[in-house]
Amino acid sequence: MNLDQIFNAAQQAFLSYKNLSPRKKADFLDKTAEILEENRGAIVMMACRESNLPEGRINGELGRTTGQIKLFANLVREGSWVEATIDPAMPDRTPLPRADIRRMLRPLGPVVVFGASNFPLAFSTAGGDTISALAAGCPVIYKGHPAHPDTSKFVGSCISQALEKCGLPAGIFTHVEGGVKMGQDLVKHPQTKAVGFTGSYSAGKSLFNIASDRDQPIPVYAEMGSVNPIFTFPQRLKNELLPLAQNYVNSLTLGAGQFCTNPGLIFVPKALAEGFKNAVSQTITQVAPAPMLHEGIAESYYKALNELQLRSELNWVKVPDAQHLINASPSLAEISVQDWLKDDKFQEEVFGSFALMVIYDHADELTHVAKHLHGQLTITLWGDPSELQEQEDLISLLEEKCGRLLFTGVPTGVEVGFAMQHGGPFPATTDSRSTSVGAHAIKRFARPVAYQDMPVSLLLDELKDENPLGIMRLLNGKWTS
Amino acid sequence: MNLDQIFNAAQQAFLSYKNLSPRKKADFLDKTAEILEENRGAIVMMACRESNLPEGRINGELGRTTGQIKLFANLVREGSWVEATIDPAMPDRTPLPRADIRRMLRPLGPVVVFGASNFPLAFSTAGGDTISALAAGCPVIYKGHPAHPDTSKFVGSCISQALEKCGLPAGIFTHVEGGVKMGQDLVKHPQTKAVGFTGSYSAGKSLFNIASDRDQPIPVYAEMGSVNPIFTFPQRLKNELLPLAQNYVNSLTLGAGQFCTNPGLIFVPKALAEGFKNAVSQTITQVAPAPMLHEGIAESYYKALNELQLRSELNWVKVPDAQHLINASPSLAEISVQDWLKDDKFQEEVFGSFALMVIYDHADELTHVAKHLHGQLTITLWGDPSELQEQEDLISLLEEKCGRLLFTGVPTGVEVGFAMQHGGPFPATTDSRSTSVGAHAIKRFARPVAYQDMPVSLLLDELKDENPLGIMRLLNGKWTS
Repeated sequence: MNLDQIFNAAQQAFLSYKNLSPRKKADFLDKTAEILEENRGAIVMMACRESNLPEGRINGELGRTTGQIKLFANLVREGSWVEATIDPAMPDRTPLPRADIRRMLRPLGPVVVFGASNFPLAFSTAGGDTISALAAGCPVIYKGHPAHPDTSKFVGSCISQALEKCGLPAGIFTHVEGGVKMGQDLVKHPQTKAVGFTGSYSAGKSLFNIASDRDQPIPVYAEMGSVNPIFTFPQRLKNELLPLAQNYVNSLTLGAGQFCTNPGLIFVPKALAEGFKNAVSQTITQVAPAPMLHEGIAESYYKALNELQLRSELNWVKVPDAQHLINASPSLAEISVQDWLKDDKFQEEVFGSFALMVIYDHADELTHVAKHLHGQLTITLWGDPSELQEQEDLISLLEEKCGRLLFTGVPTGVEVGFAMQHGGPFPATTDSRSTSVGAHAIKRFARPVAYQDMPVSLLLDELKDENPLGIMRLLNGKWTS
Repeated sequence: MNLDQIFNAAQQAFLSYKNLSPRKKADFLDKTAEILEENRGAIVMMACRESNLPEGRINGELGRTTGQIKLFANLVREGSWVEATIDPAMPDRTPLPRADIRRMLRPLGPVVVFGASNFPLAFSTAGGDTISALAAGCPVIYKGHPAHPDTSKFVGSCISQALEKCGLPAGIFTHVEGGVKMGQDLVKHPQTKAVGFTGSYSAGKSLFNIASDRDQPIPVYAEMGSVNPIFTFPQRLKNELLPLAQNYVNSLTLGAGQFCTNPGLIFVPKALAEGFKNAVSQTITQVAPAPMLHEGIAESYYKALNELQLRSELNWVKVPDAQHLINASPSLAEISVQDWLKDDKFQEEVFGSFALMVIYDHADELTHVAKHLHGQLTITLWGDPSELQEQEDLISLLEEKCGRLLFTGVPTGVEVGFAMQHGGPFPATTDSRSTSVGAHAIKRFARPVAYQDMPVSLLLDELKDENPLGIMRLLNGKWTS
């Protein structure tokens, strides 16, 4: 099939899929999870081979993927996510009667999804973007990631199998393959209504530009990563020096540092810098070089480090071991806060387990840092309750720069739940009003439609007076179920 | 003050305003409404003079404006709009404990608003965009509309007075004046976080382009109007020919046709075309020419009509009277559905009381129409319940092309309520996921932030365990208050 045929099939499928009952939509999602689980052995073997990630991790990631699918199945089955809002008619209102107006979220239409190399399952073919779009009622055209083509195709066939078993049109999910040109053509296609993307800044931003330049601009939800700064404060750092150093190194080197929430930037008070540096340094040297996703990524990691090595502002605490094929070793450099503030280059993400440790003299300097900081997925503050209390203004500034603020643990390990926000101000994402992880991700692929004086026989169940689905609704401005 | 100073004041004010209690924010909004009411006489006089709109209309529009302000005050006071979502910690969960994650909507920051010439009050200085942004907790920089400079400045001073009386920083609202260049500079300013706009396609789209091309792209909520098609079906048209013709002409000519929901396109079955045309024609000739907002708009109206008069596909049912200064007379032309489908030009809005009546032979042709149709704010279907039931597929297609579907009345008269959706697919707006009228408009100016393991003393009231505001929240995936 050529692209026009693929989109015509998707659009045709959309007309029935968008009106499918929540229960049947949920059943299809559950069936997808079930088929993935049935094929666990094959999927894990393929994904390990193609990603170089260890079996334990991939096994866990498949569990995360099917858990995520079940979360959306339950969300759709429950049904309240559509924000049903009903203002009943007031025929006797003066000076003018009020019409009956009922509003709910409706799916956008065909969605194009690009997966991530670093999560061959959870952020790829049957990952959060695809599943939340399907849950919203949108057909998905998914472009397989060239870093794991077999896994992508196989998982795609599991989704298609689930559609078939549920008696739903095949056009609801299509797996396509191709390079940059294919990606651009998908975003340019007039029938595309939205785009989900996880990956690099350059790729995400270029898709955003294409989408904005279309005759009909469309939303692009591109999650492009960030450096996820951690701010440490003296009292807590002093009290928990070793465990915090250990936690930090664990988070930094997890999965060879290939996470969008990898904490590549840490602010440390000068008085404790030596101690923390030593603790981190001791731990980090024990971390063996780990294979990265593919040679291109390892090459980019070392290239970025070589560029930084030319910068006189940096003092290297742990120089990376020489590159050996696809393997990358963690590395760490320090810089003064004054020097860090002088060049935006020091805010750029180095994809991999590299950290920049910024030494500050006094917490006052962090106000400048906060104002200077680019948008982030996460920002972490490690301080005792008393010292955090003194940083209310700083916290208020930092809140404007991220989607998630953490106060104890590390930013890696993004919980899939109702309250998760995985998205932040540009350049972390192209749309800070959305999340790509957690239940709220479904709302990216829907828009509100109001029905005025619609005959009862045409109303969707979500908007009927008797509330047959028993969902939470805003009726006359009051929440009711 | 220059722009940098204005934005610095706004940003500074934002740091305190965003954390102001819902009650105090609501009090400020109520105070604004109160001051506007106190100055009703002066405002109405000014707005009538500057807009040429009759006193009755402007009096009503001021009521709509203050009613709208009170709606947002109540919404903010009630507090549930922030979508508070709490996933409490699960320290004993295996294999990994779950952190405490709490999420809510937080204001974006300084918002730039452009008002509309056709609503000097309800969609201008203290109109829906300004008030929903202020309600969300965002400072507003408002560019006064050159068509009603005195009204704009005066209403702006009322908002500033309300801020002063409530002891709030002046930087929360700033009124600026200027032309196109000033508008562009406001959208380009690095501290602008979002834009609200109501007006023409060309102006709205150019602001969207500027915002997308920024180093940090920002959302633009531009409502750019549409032709708001009405589809009539034989049975109902036959039964209610005269009242429907009367309703149609009333809606078309209301306010000299200067509404974004003006129904400039109507589809009529051939069998009843003559009868309906005669009924409309008789009614429309009784409508006297009415003054438009300003000479430029009258000039554009006549220029557009002159262009259409050169088109041989059109048959003029009511030729407009010759232009007399600022006055415009209603006009009506008919075209066959076959000719209409051939040229997108026939979908372009003529701002004013001009209608294109498209004659169709059979309802099947409307499927092509639906597919061909541009995005609209509203689409209306006038059919008997039985004939609508037969049009389920058509309705499904039309739903994809608009923000509001109507089944009895006319699209003009946009209700300000909870269920209203005033926004639609491009080119009706630049962001179909949002509404510029009604309670949901507040969400345009907020984004979600998640707080992970935040110390209780730092949590906002909306997210505290004890729910001191008594708002509706999603706790562990269940709605609760």
